[in-house]
Amino acid sequence: MDGVKVIEIKKSIFADNNEDADKLRAELKEHGTYLLNLMSSPGSGKTTTLIRTLNLLKDKLNIAVMEADIDSDVDAIKIKDATGIESIQLHTGGMCHLDAEMTRQGLDNVQLQGKDLVILENVGNLVCPAEFDTGAVRNAMILSVPEGYDKPLKYPLMFSVCDLVIVNKIDVMPYFDFDLDKCTEYVHMRNPKAQIIPICAKTGEGVDKVAEWLLDEVKNWKNK
Amino acid sequence: MDGVKVIEIKKSIFADNNEDADKLRAELKEHGTYLLNLMSSPGSGKTTTLIRTLNLLKDKLNIAVMEADIDSDVDAIKIKDATGIESIQLHTGGMCHLDAEMTRQGLDNVQLQGKDLVILENVGNLVCPAEFDTGAVRNAMILSVPEGYDKPLKYPLMFSVCDLVIVNKIDVMPYFDFDLDKCTEYVHMRNPKAQIIPICAKTGEGVDKVAEWLLDEVKNWKNK
Repeated sequence: MDGVKVIEIKKSIFADNNEDADKLRAELKEHGTYLLNLMSSPGSGKTTTLIRTLNLLKDKLNIAVMEADIDSDVDAIKIKDATGIESIQLHTGGMCHLDAEMTRQGLDNVQLQGKDLVILENVGNLVCPAEFDTGAVRNAMILSVPEGYDKPLKYPLMFSVCDLVIVNKIDVMPYFDFDLDKCTEYVHMRNPKAQIIPICAKTGEGVDKVAEWLLDEVKNWKNK
Repeated sequence: MDGVKVIEIKKSIFADNNEDADKLRAELKEHGTYLLNLMSSPGSGKTTTLIRTLNLLKDKLNIAVMEADIDSDVDAIKIKDATGIESIQLHTGGMCHLDAEMTRQGLDNVQLQGKDLVILENVGNLVCPAEFDTGAVRNAMILSVPEGYDKPLKYPLMFSVCDLVIVNKIDVMPYFDFDLDKCTEYVHMRNPKAQIIPICAKTGEGVDKVAEWLLDEVKNWKNK
């Protein structure tokens, strides 16, 4: 296994994160780089979903990945090994989220020239990451079937700030009492415009829809 | 469905949470009340596990439950309906964890006289709740099979502070690549003394072991 670059993220000093996030978004626009902030609970399948999606997109877009984690390096190594895509690991040193300044610390280690897309895999947590604008163009999240379809009721902010909700592990739906219609209803209570894409990252089912969504997003944003 | 008491938790003003937690523990000891802090990711099955455990213990111990959640009341109502046990809902108003002072705000609404056990179901989150001593005698956590057996590597603090790790949803182990031996090894890397109890909260398998552990804990602590 090849090593990956590991960045120890420091606490932010900026007082106004929203302002800083807008600034970062504008800088990324100048580079033509679209930033996606991907969030979820621990164990929802973020890394597997990402690997599948990246393999569908890597011939169409120039991509880099930043994997935020409290401690380990396993995710960035997995991504690099499975896709060949530039992946760096961000260590938050116990911090439960990333804000715009922390995201910038990661981006300082990415070659942005010519990069169409950077995906930030945020810390596994449905609470804190939702509170901080990272400077991304869009937020997406993964809800896995075993977590239950009632999660939009319990984590309202997370579902309010996400434009895409990927429902993962649909292969085990028969073993869990997961009601996709109810889930859709609850997601739309929080954000009526949110798109919902059911997938099985393990088999790849539905991942083409995620790749299409992302490709459209990047193209539309470049032409804006 | 019957209503339950809902407490809106305010932000703490205490500077030293550890000191405050020790003070709360001493006060609870005077009442003879054992406090358990139960943590996990969203959707790991905390509430179902709790209902099963409470139904095994409610004739042996005088118990109350505090359900912490960012927003909804569904868990406290479920617990009360399924067990008849006094349950109150704590709303954290977006806060991602409970500290000792916030726990105390909840306990102010519990009749402690004669209460053997209070169980605090913390906010669903593997990061922040681990950082704050709530004043509990012990921390326990639930890791569900679909989350993956590598979680002790990724959320080191959570597994370091827990004395009991309940591995839930073992009925779906064949559908996930979950290695219980590796999981045990990783948990013990973080806390060599941690007990691990595999269960299926849905069918009740193994929950008697959790009830036994808790009954022993309460008895030993009373006799200390």
